[in-house]
Amino acid sequence: MEISRYYTPTRVVFGKNALSELGGELKKENAKKVLVHFGGQSAKKSGLLDKVLSILDENGISHVELGGVKPNPRLSLVREGIALGKKEGIDFIIALGGGSVIDSSKAIGYGLKYEKDVWDFYSGKAKPEGAVGVGAILTIAAAGSEMSDSSVITNDESGWLKRGCNSDVCRCHFAIMDPEYTYTLPPYQSACGTVDIIMHTLERFFHSGDGISLTDNIATAMIKSVIESGRKVMEDPDDYEARANLMWASSISHNGLMQVGNDNRGDWTCHQMEHELSGMFDIAHGAGLAIVFPAWARYIYKDHVERFAKLGNLVFSYEGNDEATALKTIETFESIFHSLGMPVHLKDAGIELDEKKMEELLDKLTNNNTRTLGVFHNLKRDDMRKVYEIAR
Amino acid sequence: MEISRYYTPTRVVFGKNALSELGGELKKENAKKVLVHFGGQSAKKSGLLDKVLSILDENGISHVELGGVKPNPRLSLVREGIALGKKEGIDFIIALGGGSVIDSSKAIGYGLKYEKDVWDFYSGKAKPEGAVGVGAILTIAAAGSEMSDSSVITNDESGWLKRGCNSDVCRCHFAIMDPEYTYTLPPYQSACGTVDIIMHTLERFFHSGDGISLTDNIATAMIKSVIESGRKVMEDPDDYEARANLMWASSISHNGLMQVGNDNRGDWTCHQMEHELSGMFDIAHGAGLAIVFPAWARYIYKDHVERFAKLGNLVFSYEGNDEATALKTIETFESIFHSLGMPVHLKDAGIELDEKKMEELLDKLTNNNTRTLGVFHNLKRDDMRKVYEIAR
Repeated sequence: MEISRYYTPTRVVFGKNALSELGGELKKENAKKVLVHFGGQSAKKSGLLDKVLSILDENGISHVELGGVKPNPRLSLVREGIALGKKEGIDFIIALGGGSVIDSSKAIGYGLKYEKDVWDFYSGKAKPEGAVGVGAILTIAAAGSEMSDSSVITNDESGWLKRGCNSDVCRCHFAIMDPEYTYTLPPYQSACGTVDIIMHTLERFFHSGDGISLTDNIATAMIKSVIESGRKVMEDPDDYEARANLMWASSISHNGLMQVGNDNRGDWTCHQMEHELSGMFDIAHGAGLAIVFPAWARYIYKDHVERFAKLGNLVFSYEGNDEATALKTIETFESIFHSLGMPVHLKDAGIELDEKKMEELLDKLTNNNTRTLGVFHNLKRDDMRKVYEIAR
Repeated sequence: MEISRYYTPTRVVFGKNALSELGGELKKENAKKVLVHFGGQSAKKSGLLDKVLSILDENGISHVELGGVKPNPRLSLVREGIALGKKEGIDFIIALGGGSVIDSSKAIGYGLKYEKDVWDFYSGKAKPEGAVGVGAILTIAAAGSEMSDSSVITNDESGWLKRGCNSDVCRCHFAIMDPEYTYTLPPYQSACGTVDIIMHTLERFFHSGDGISLTDNIATAMIKSVIESGRKVMEDPDDYEARANLMWASSISHNGLMQVGNDNRGDWTCHQMEHELSGMFDIAHGAGLAIVFPAWARYIYKDHVERFAKLGNLVFSYEGNDEATALKTIETFESIFHSLGMPVHLKDAGIELDEKKMEELLDKLTNNNTRTLGVFHNLKRDDMRKVYEIAR
């Protein structure tokens, strides 16, 4: 059994009116000049941005703002943030939004402590050794970036590669989490978030080597709760408890809790296959995962009947330890994703994956035939093609 | 709903041979002179103390040792550690042992940064503002002190009061957790640990006001796993996975995870009633809890049928939401504690609680009639008496 690490230094402030603690949290950071980074109009329209700026003013902290973060956050805006931050002498970043805004903020944080090209950290050319601190004010429950060591950026300047960088250095210093901020999320985005949370947990559930049953049990208890809460917010977007469950689940599904005692951090093939898809077609991450997971699972499950059956047993109380149970488990996840309004095939999302695009995807995914994917089940280029074919 | 906080900065290193990471962890602390604090002979006999000292030597870190920590760790030894630490210029403390050693180390850490009497923090006279850092090498899965903000010390100099101090300042900087170190624990201690872990979770399950079902579901998934693993280690003390489940459960039962989204940190009446018991009679903490919980639960459950029935539903799959289900749940916990070899009445532990001692206990527990206990169910002096009477 390998040594596993768990490190989650983020100060979580959770519940209604959590924003009232922002001033106190910023004092702990000794922040003097803050970059407030956000997405589109919703932060303005909801009045949340104004509230944040008021709190900064009340606490005598100067600030500059940079909006415009899009889903699959772009390198070009990261560069803009770094230039602005250097010019303004920024010493702390507030990420006001969901995973895309937080990932973009983390990248800006890296860049502010680095003299060379920030893409070096995403291309694997360099490892970050420091970063300007980020504090998150979460408005979307999905990516878990508020507690994770991960940041994923899309290179819109060259090749639309979507690449991640993992480092403890970028973990948020604090996270303000008020579930009420997610009431106004459109159903499609809530569904995407639900799938993303489930998949962050499943990627880790499908690890190789040894693991401990306590982590399996906690992971599957959480998935059950997320499925139930996802359904509830589809019916009533203002269901506080369901929103709270999803928000906290988003954090703990991706902060490392779901891999303690496992030999590794999990498989992550579905995420990588989805990253290239959404890099190329710009579909929402959760929707892409809802397409890729059933296809991946169908392609490999016969070699891993026991693990898929165990998942079905723990989440859906399915009995038996055979191919039929394993397949039923996969079908149930697919049907849950579908019932949340997610696409479960590429065609459902209007994506036509012709042979030319397929080759392009596979080139990117295999880094021009230099890498394979997965520790739970290793996929080579031809396997990846078959998974995408099933997904069509 | 109140705001809840979750903050667990401890760097957890978990698994077989986790000790190999000690040098690296100490480098992160920039430690120059370390106090190695431990309990009795087992640290020496097992060779673990020697291994730790070798690692310190290899890393050029000087050290002094202080053994002798007993269960219900004593203020007098804490004072000795503070005096030694000040004389030697200690800048970091390694706690080699279980909860008692870690709690004693935390108290020494407080004292090394405080000019006045360290008991001030436990009597409530002062709040700690700093502490010399503590890193734990865990050898007993029970107290969860390796990730908690808590330290409990018994004042052996005056009145045998057992008092706790909670502060983020004392959270361990790192925790080295190798489940194999717990193979040699005697069955009685393993059982005490199992009960302690369950009770850290139950105290939080019985909170007042609002909470979220995700936290309930995770808490009860963990309790199920702990019950199963506790039984397994009784049969096979070298069952790695069961030991690993218990060790990790000890940490997450007490690091705050089991109270996220709840309006408060839980009831804690059983712990307080047990603290006075074990302060007076010096029984093991877990054994004391196994006695107090069933008595407390029997005394109050009729006012909280729904919550006890929910516990039974989630942990034991009991159906129904009535007094019978609630009572059956309490009886099942009692019978599990009993089957682990724990006392479930005072007489089982050879404790005779006569009227004179009862009054003495109640005087301490109520701080001479100045406090009541519990947020889930408030107990006054006469209620506490009745609980102890049921426990006889």
